[in-house]
Amino acid sequence: MNYNETFSSIYNVLSTLDNEGQTAQYIPELAVIDPEKFGVSLFTNEGELFSFQDAEEKFSIQSIVKVLSLVLAYRQLGVQIWDRVGVEPSGTPFNSLVQLEYEKGIPRNPFINAGAIVVADILVGALKDPEVAFLDFLHEIIGDKSVNYSEAIAKSEKEHAFRNLALVNLMKSFGNIKNDVDRVMDFYFKICSICMTTEELVKVFSFLANEGVSPITEKGIVSQRQAKRVNALMQTCGFYDESGEFAFKVGLPGQSGVGGGILAVHPGKYTIAVWSPKLNAKGNSFLGSKFLEAFTTAIGSSIF
Amino acid sequence: MNYNETFSSIYNVLSTLDNEGQTAQYIPELAVIDPEKFGVSLFTNEGELFSFQDAEEKFSIQSIVKVLSLVLAYRQLGVQIWDRVGVEPSGTPFNSLVQLEYEKGIPRNPFINAGAIVVADILVGALKDPEVAFLDFLHEIIGDKSVNYSEAIAKSEKEHAFRNLALVNLMKSFGNIKNDVDRVMDFYFKICSICMTTEELVKVFSFLANEGVSPITEKGIVSQRQAKRVNALMQTCGFYDESGEFAFKVGLPGQSGVGGGILAVHPGKYTIAVWSPKLNAKGNSFLGSKFLEAFTTAIGSSIF
Amino acid sequence: MNYNETFSSIYNVLSTLDNEGQTAQYIPELAVIDPEKFGVSLFTNEGELFSFQDAEEKFSIQSIVKVLSLVLAYRQLGVQIWDRVGVEPSGTPFNSLVQLEYEKGIPRNPFINAGAIVVADILVGALKDPEVAFLDFLHEIIGDKSVNYSEAIAKSEKEHAFRNLALVNLMKSFGNIKNDVDRVMDFYFKICSICMTTEELVKVFSFLANEGVSPITEKGIVSQRQAKRVNALMQTCGFYDESGEFAFKVGLPGQSGVGGGILAVHPGKYTIAVWSPKLNAKGNSFLGSKFLEAFTTAIGSSIF
Amino acid sequence: MNYNETFSSIYNVLSTLDNEGQTAQYIPELAVIDPEKFGVSLFTNEGELFSFQDAEEKFSIQSIVKVLSLVLAYRQLGVQIWDRVGVEPSGTPFNSLVQLEYEKGIPRNPFINAGAIVVADILVGALKDPEVAFLDFLHEIIGDKSVNYSEAIAKSEKEHAFRNLALVNLMKSFGNIKNDVDRVMDFYFKICSICMTTEELVKVFSFLANEGVSPITEKGIVSQRQAKRVNALMQTCGFYDESGEFAFKVGLPGQSGVGGGILAVHPGKYTIAVWSPKLNAKGNSFLGSKFLEAFTTAIGSSIF
Repeated sequence: MNYNETFSSIYNVLSTLDNEGQTAQYIPELAVIDPEKFGVSLFTNEGELFSFQDAEEKFSIQSIVKVLSLVLAYRQLGVQIWDRVGVEPSGTPFNSLVQLEYEKGIPRNPFINAGAIVVADILVGALKDPEVAFLDFLHEIIGDKSVNYSEAIAKSEKEHAFRNLALVNLMKSFGNIKNDVDRVMDFYFKICSICMTTEELVKVFSFLANEGVSPITEKGIVSQRQAKRVNALMQTCGFYDESGEFAFKVGLPGQSGVGGGILAVHPGKYTIAVWSPKLNAKGNSFLGSKFLEAFTTAIGSSIF
Repeated sequence: MNYNETFSSIYNVLSTLDNEGQTAQYIPELAVIDPEKFGVSLFTNEGELFSFQDAEEKFSIQSIVKVLSLVLAYRQLGVQIWDRVGVEPSGTPFNSLVQLEYEKGIPRNPFINAGAIVVADILVGALKDPEVAFLDFLHEIIGDKSVNYSEAIAKSEKEHAFRNLALVNLMKSFGNIKNDVDRVMDFYFKICSICMTTEELVKVFSFLANEGVSPITEKGIVSQRQAKRVNALMQTCGFYDESGEFAFKVGLPGQSGVGGGILAVHPGKYTIAVWSPKLNAKGNSFLGSKFLEAFTTAIGSSIF
Repeated sequence: MNYNETFSSIYNVLSTLDNEGQTAQYIPELAVIDPEKFGVSLFTNEGELFSFQDAEEKFSIQSIVKVLSLVLAYRQLGVQIWDRVGVEPSGTPFNSLVQLEYEKGIPRNPFINAGAIVVADILVGALKDPEVAFLDFLHEIIGDKSVNYSEAIAKSEKEHAFRNLALVNLMKSFGNIKNDVDRVMDFYFKICSICMTTEELVKVFSFLANEGVSPITEKGIVSQRQAKRVNALMQTCGFYDESGEFAFKVGLPGQSGVGGGILAVHPGKYTIAVWSPKLNAKGNSFLGSKFLEAFTTAIGSSIF
Repeated sequence: MNYNETFSSIYNVLSTLDNEGQTAQYIPELAVIDPEKFGVSLFTNEGELFSFQDAEEKFSIQSIVKVLSLVLAYRQLGVQIWDRVGVEPSGTPFNSLVQLEYEKGIPRNPFINAGAIVVADILVGALKDPEVAFLDFLHEIIGDKSVNYSEAIAKSEKEHAFRNLALVNLMKSFGNIKNDVDRVMDFYFKICSICMTTEELVKVFSFLANEGVSPITEKGIVSQRQAKRVNALMQTCGFYDESGEFAFKVGLPGQSGVGGGILAVHPGKYTIAVWSPKLNAKGNSFLGSKFLEAFTTAIGSSIF
């Protein structure tokens, strides 16, 4: 099947709509992105790549990286990570402290900020040189060294991180952060600063559509069982308090970032990534969400 | 594929475990059920039925009926029902009032009690004789008239319904219940009292595995799009504050009842129902959850 | 000291302000009251009475009665009532269910609706004919039989009581309501319907300013210790989530009702009641609060 | 009146009880205090001082200082401080983040930690050399230079301050902290480390019992109106989620510290301070609370 025509015809329809929302404003690097950028890529388990428009332009993947850091921690340490972070939807915004206080510092899931910070703490404790090891892990999956951090974005994030500092200190007060708070946050901001194209994204995540095995290098990244569980987590938790809506309308496990990217997985079939910088009120790409809804409707393909 | 052997070998392994938990205690009809009862049935889209042990014994399906009442309301009234009930996981127990107060009487989703009561209110307003119409709807799907209410259970529920009366009155105070509170609750308790066997359950729900069309009668019950959305909702919300765990471990959309039943759907393939009366701390069948986890692991089949 | 001139000069200043807010709208009997009505009375422990404007006109005292029902329950049953209702400010609106769910059906204090309903339940259980006994109690304090229920208001309240029905059913589900829900609510609406003038109010409450002894009949109503504790409770809880503000600005223990009445006590000195039907956003008399603030400032008299 | 005998006889009765609770454990300086220490002092508006047992031994006053920092900010900046911190009881523990998130970074009152940190931020912004200016302020009230910081305690606090760092960062994210977070917290820990004897405490606070004027130096510290308002705030908020209980049982405005000190004010009459290091479950001095309850009961003197 050739998806290029589907991409193009959906894009043409959506172009006639108002592109509502606005780009993330909290750091300059995200606020200045051209809001009309739009890219989409799809990568099948057979190795076919389909791309449309700005699919070769790098953007800040932000929270999408939380899936990759979870995968690395899960692979390194196995089920013991679930002692420190849950697997339930939170029902609250991505940066809420309320549940964290009621539940004594154990985040609901690894995709809200608190959960991703715990995962960062786990990796800082488990890896020798976490920043290097994390990039090595990404390069292992895609088979080249094209992915890197953005020092400028990491620095900017750090300067506007009061809410995240509140989260990490609250968890530290409950004993659920083991390393130095500043060390953990440096690593966290570093991995959130990674820039990728939609083409790179679909390749990096392709092992999750393929039972844990990279279709590019044919190397096993995680077990089949682990891949399924990560996909299930994305389905129930990847869109924060809009996760139900995304499952309802798009019907694929996915993860969203404030840079305007969305990554989704059709287990057994393909990965798809879309990028459009304007965000809706919940902080997810406005046009990206609409595009994926139209796409799974058009090709009659969702996991449900 | 013949599932009988899989059922039997999983059951043999699980039998060696302690069957933890206890039967629902709040009404006599549920408390006195033999806790060692166990039944499982699977029904494929091709019409094959596999059953094990007590699969022909009727039990109280309780909250599993919430999916069927949602389907009927969705079919009758379409998307306008989403003005009155959300599609997001609640992150709280099935009978919590907290979110309902913060969110001004709009329940998070149709499977927590508050949401199911709103759906009951919608049906009471839309149907001429709701109790009769609801049974007719079930009979239409399975092609016979074998399903009925239990007057004794409905009466017992009503006498122990203070928490549900709190929910319905709170929603009424916000204007999200349109009919008389007592009328709505009578209908709600009536439909929750329905008794079915696991064989009946898998047949009644089979249209959700088959793009909205009953494989028995070949009649369309809902549109393909509606079927997918109901499945997505079961995935994110069907197990209340254990929905993430169920997606994570079992990997199928499903719905649980305090009678000890669990119904799950593999879209495109089959429906499966299991019954074991002892409940875990979250109110879901202890052995039933374990069985389904072992089953999807054994046959390597989940939607993720 | 003659307070008439102080009353008059404060009233003249306040008259030049906009009388913001609006009368309680949820039942017709309160909505139709002339919003410009204004009455104030002060009764000293020496038996002097000072009144201004509409001080001899009856109005619905609503929640102000909660103090009197608490006093009766406290006198009858002593400290055991504190097992079923707390003595802490709630920090939330008067009709909130949130804390009640977290704290398993034990209301924070006897002046929020939930707490007053528990007190009503206590009285229904302890008194032979609660409606008669309650009026007898009021008549005992003031030495005549001038106070009565308003059947019309009680009936109206009952028809618009969904939020209160949610509260009582939630507490019943936790076991903190011992009698039949309808019986308790009938009594609760009955006592909330009592109408008094500001002159009657200051006389009825005068024992709280006088160490538990009615200055009119010289009979002891409660012990000195109990009187002090009821006053302390009014100080910290009598204005719901505006209690801090009232203590801060007025500096007297007091209780407010949605009929626009406010009753305040200066222990050792006097009781004062003011009536002005327009309410602020928190449901307390707009002009009444301003008047009391100006009054305690003018005469340099508060408990702080 | 001579209070020495009252002190002695109450102490003798209480000595026969178990001294429940334990000393604050989170920093070594507090954990190692001899738990049997006990001191009490009372200072009348006429300048009489009564002391009992360890009344001349310095201890860490901790949160009691929050009243003094509030007074200084109130005096310097007047009512504008109420734009940044409320005057309502919180209904939650002293270090809760829940309400702070719901209410967008505005603390409920100046005596919970979040509120005291905002006051510290106000002082850091308003004073040239805050640490020096604050001590000068205390010395101005008592007329000598006996009070000082404890560097060791301030340092220890800082090392165990994750919960407070969560609070300050959360408020900074909402824009309610204007200065650098570390600068504000350094000042906050510094003032919380102040050590005083109960004799010093009753003298420092004596202006609050005396309409804003120090009975020692006869200098006005704050206006009569401000003194009343600070007392009202102590009454409704000084014991966090035990404020209602303290008002109910003791009947005086007061403030508690985890060092085991309690300061209370009888406006128009006296200040009283008690010190006993073992804390109850809410973090208030176990024996100190009992002592004050017995004292106001014995002399029949409370504001209610």
